Amino acid sequence: MLEKMFYPESVAVIGASADPRKLGHTVLKNIVDGGFKGRIYPINPKGGEILDLKAYQSVLDVPDEVDLAVIIVPAKFVPGVMEDLGKKGVKAAIIITGGFREASNEELEEQVLEIAGKYGIRVVGPNCQGINNTHHQLCASWPLITLKGRIAIASQSGTVAAALADWSQDDGIGFSTFVSLGNKSDVDEVDIIEFFSEDDNTAAIALYIEGVRDGRRFMDAARKCRKPIVVLKPGVTERGAKAVESHTKSMAGRDAVFEAACRQSGIVRAENLEELYDFAKAFAYLRPFKGERVLIVTSSGGSGILAIDVLESNGLKVFEADEELKAKLRELVPAHAILDNPIDLTGDATAEMYLNVVKAAFDYADAFLLIVGDPIEGAADTVIEVVRMADEAGKTVVVAFLGGAEVEKEEVAKMHSNNIPVFPTPERAAKVLAALKRWGH
Amino acid sequence: MLEKMFYPESVAVIGASADPRKLGHTVLKNIVDGGFKGRIYPINPKGGEILDLKAYQSVLDVPDEVDLAVIIVPAKFVPGVMEDLGKKGVKAAIIITGGFREASNEELEEQVLEIAGKYGIRVVGPNCQGINNTHHQLCASWPLITLKGRIAIASQSGTVAAALADWSQDDGIGFSTFVSLGNKSDVDEVDIIEFFSEDDNTAAIALYIEGVRDGRRFMDAARKCRKPIVVLKPGVTERGAKAVESHTKSMAGRDAVFEAACRQSGIVRAENLEELYDFAKAFAYLRPFKGERVLIVTSSGGSGILAIDVLESNGLKVFEADEELKAKLRELVPAHAILDNPIDLTGDATAEMYLNVVKAAFDYADAFLLIVGDPIEGAADTVIEVVRMADEAGKTVVVAFLGGAEVEKEEVAKMHSNNIPVFPTPERAAKVLAALKRWGH
Repeated sequence: MLEKMFYPESVAVIGASADPRKLGHTVLKNIVDGGFKGRIYPINPKGGEILDLKAYQSVLDVPDEVDLAVIIVPAKFVPGVMEDLGKKGVKAAIIITGGFREASNEELEEQVLEIAGKYGIRVVGPNCQGINNTHHQLCASWPLITLKGRIAIASQSGTVAAALADWSQDDGIGFSTFVSLGNKSDVDEVDIIEFFSEDDNTAAIALYIEGVRDGRRFMDAARKCRKPIVVLKPGVTERGAKAVESHTKSMAGRDAVFEAACRQSGIVRAENLEELYDFAKAFAYLRPFKGERVLIVTSSGGSGILAIDVLESNGLKVFEADEELKAKLRELVPAHAILDNPIDLTGDATAEMYLNVVKAAFDYADAFLLIVGDPIEGAADTVIEVVRMADEAGKTVVVAFLGGAEVEKEEVAKMHSNNIPVFPTPERAAKVLAALKRWGH
Repeated sequence: MLEKMFYPESVAVIGASADPRKLGHTVLKNIVDGGFKGRIYPINPKGGEILDLKAYQSVLDVPDEVDLAVIIVPAKFVPGVMEDLGKKGVKAAIIITGGFREASNEELEEQVLEIAGKYGIRVVGPNCQGINNTHHQLCASWPLITLKGRIAIASQSGTVAAALADWSQDDGIGFSTFVSLGNKSDVDEVDIIEFFSEDDNTAAIALYIEGVRDGRRFMDAARKCRKPIVVLKPGVTERGAKAVESHTKSMAGRDAVFEAACRQSGIVRAENLEELYDFAKAFAYLRPFKGERVLIVTSSGGSGILAIDVLESNGLKVFEADEELKAKLRELVPAHAILDNPIDLTGDATAEMYLNVVKAAFDYADAFLLIVGDPIEGAADTVIEVVRMADEAGKTVVVAFLGGAEVEKEEVAKMHSNNIPVFPTPERAAKVLAALKRWGH
């Protein structure tokens, strides 16, 4: 039960500091500034007040139940803190402090785990960047991000998770929960999958893991999971696998074995960091793609062709428009539009034209790849309408919006704020559609 | 001789319009607002004044030599305009107007070409988005971008070129010249390669082409070219090749043949739009990579491993640090840093630490991949110093800066303004290093 880890009613920050340069200050401040609605107890041997909150010298002095403890004291003090937590009846701890197994202090980590086991305390970390549950307004981490979204991000690398968090913030779609797993001494990928499978605020799970502790349990959990899972796991090359060992003492294992495990348990694997983000964003807001036939509508012929190569290489069918369809479309578009598939509206495309074309071709395709290659005003409104139609009919819509000019930025922001994911290149959008197909199978 | 196309002293805009909704207005306005230093002549049958410039009813009325004509009149009027240009002695024309071969009006395009041939007029287009030479302050195109840079972008897709232009503007590195080739009726990839090979403002050429008109000439031009060339050419799949035919009536040809041609003539091929941009950006500002040994310095162990997989898959060597090197580094980094390769400084990394580590390890590596995974202040200054050292020693430095928070944006902007390209993920940076290696061979 990780309920108290992710949805605590009271939090103690062990190692809270009044010094703004210290991490023990940053984390406490982020919990406060993030708007945490529960009770917050700074713990510091000096007592006093920190950020206008009464600080206690020990967690044992807190005149209240403590659901979650966030630990930011030097490694050697962690076992003592854990004993205190046990006596206090705390059942969830995030150990941000580093200097354990990753620094060859296996013994210290074992000692901490033993105490945790004795008292039934679940542990995230050590050596991690904390957790941030935006829906519970609990940012026991950094940077402070409060935007609520649907993707749960869990990672053995704090930086990788932070990159995804930053991108989701830039896109304005946010995330549900950010979990930095660190040394993964206790809470691991299986716990994450099991917990977020049942978390109502989460629609998709993005995992960066360097190794799997128990392949059988991992596959079982993934198979039972009610949310789609995207995994990025490096160590594909021999040299990479060796680096994994140095980094988190994980065993990367044979990549082919992991690949097979993913296929068998419905996990979609990402090839790189941007795919991990793209796929998670797609899975959180779109449906699995069950069909075959893809129609591309674009204002940029070149972009359409770039998408075709990716789609066809991934086993999707960019069908050729038949004469009947072409005849239907002919009167909706400029004379110089190219009425094949892609339907190339050319640079004269308008938002209305996109809408009319999709409506006319609606029954011909199972999925639509809309590529907006020019600064087309009103594109967001068209996309919102197309997505509504597609939702009703069980079809899939993936949107690429190319270019970084102002109109693009506004339209993209509008789509994201309407929970429609947008991808920055035709190829990335096409890969997303292929991933939605893999998820659908 | 395309000198008058890209560096004209006077420009006539045929089809200039006072109506801000018309392209003939936008293009004229962009030439004016872009700060063109030469003479500008709007041509409009109504005469009068447009944007405070005297408009002439015909180019024949202009009391001056005209170096370049930008044509934005309906397709059927283009032959007549070309005749006028011939009589006027104009030697360069950009035909923005569409409605020629791409709309199955092959005859009209042939007619235009014949007139051009008769008078010796070189033609960019038709059916294109114009050209923008930032160094000559000539934006005969849209959007208006004035930032001077070193990459020449030439493309059969206006939108693809515009995406690269937008990105280069967002990055603050700019481009030298943007050329939308459109139907490529006259000026083609060979002309582009030959011209920009000699253009002092261009350091690298980025090409998006859907077909090559003359393979032998293309390879010859590429071999002789004094600047590195990156090419994105779709139509890799059968279905994609078919779409190429519909789009620009180009013959995609067998991809394996094109691939071999690239290898033999020193062209580096990009797999997608982001690679086209990344590689061009790298080639414009970095040197070819001649060595073997890559050292990764990172604040993020996970990011380092993601980079290793890409480097090793591409034939580069992420050597293992020997005891001598580890001993040298030990005193420069925190106790918990991981002194292998990658050298993982962990989240406690400082800009100074990066610099000290690179200095200490300088003789061990031929290339450095610096991955900054956290908001590290002063990172740009360190990178600037490392690049200076590397330049003197003939070594290569590639930088990835991960995450989108404010500190990252500031540091990245500082690096770009110092002509140091920065890439947004460890994998993209690693692919860039592999591309620099291919270029080096």
